[in-house]
Amino acid sequence: MDQRVSLITLGVADLARSRTFYEELGWEGQQVESTVFFQAGGQAIVLWGRGALAEDAGVPDTGSSSAFRSIALALNVRSRSEVDAALGEAARAGATITSPAAETFYGGYAGYFADPDGHLWEVAHNPGFTLKADGSLVLPDFSGS
Amino acid sequence: MDQRVSLITLGVADLARSRTFYEELGWEGQQVESTVFFQAGGQAIVLWGRGALAEDAGVPDTGSSSAFRSIALALNVRSRSEVDAALGEAARAGATITSPAAETFYGGYAGYFADPDGHLWEVAHNPGFTLKADGSLVLPDFSGS
Repeated sequence: MDQRVSLITLGVADLARSRTFYEELGWEGQQVESTVFFQAGGQAIVLWGRGALAEDAGVPDTGSSSAFRSIALALNVRSRSEVDAALGEAARAGATITSPAAETFYGGYAGYFADPDGHLWEVAHNPGFTLKADGSLVLPDFSGS
Repeated sequence: MDQRVSLITLGVADLARSRTFYEELGWEGQQVESTVFFQAGGQAIVLWGRGALAEDAGVPDTGSSSAFRSIALALNVRSRSEVDAALGEAARAGATITSPAAETFYGGYAGYFADPDGHLWEVAHNPGFTLKADGSLVLPDFSGS
């Protein structure tokens, strides 16, 4: 199985609310029936009804939207001030800041927010990871660390 | 906030079990202390302890690993036979097939599996989405559809 991810689908309770939230972050999406697609680098983020996603995946929608998802998305940026700016933008768009920006153990700077459905996003500046001009991330060779 | 995703961190109960699972899919990762990093196109997939992720994100680990996560990752491939092959590989590696491969409403072919911690992956062939040679996905312009 190829080592990549093509799409990330976020199950949402209210498609319009979630679309507005991501658009207030400056994102531009395309709505197709009851789905919103955002091109995000070489992949796509998709907003879709929580119940529809559960049904499509063949799992029960346990309905506990406050349960910890055990998954987090991260946006890596180029400076600490970009971390602060993005978290501020998210808060103004209605996100909950679950962990304010702070120094990290790896010498970086990061914080987390939760989107309207509780999906966790970390915004991080990690000087050890390469961000190419197109925004793609390249891990270091950790064997020398 | 830039319209992209740099990392996807999957909270796991047993790092060795999860690392073995993804390596049995053919993935190659680098372990750094209690974290495993997989380069996945222009981003990274990270395996990390569920409790550590919750603490880092500033949210309670509600412990209900069987709750629906309301999020799914997808790997898009180039043919129906590649869908079958990837789902077969996942099943042999110990995944639960939550939705066997079948025709989709959009004229494609897809199925889902859950990894050892219940993280959902869809494997899909969608003839309407472009997969570039490097595996990156490009959404169509839906306005004409």
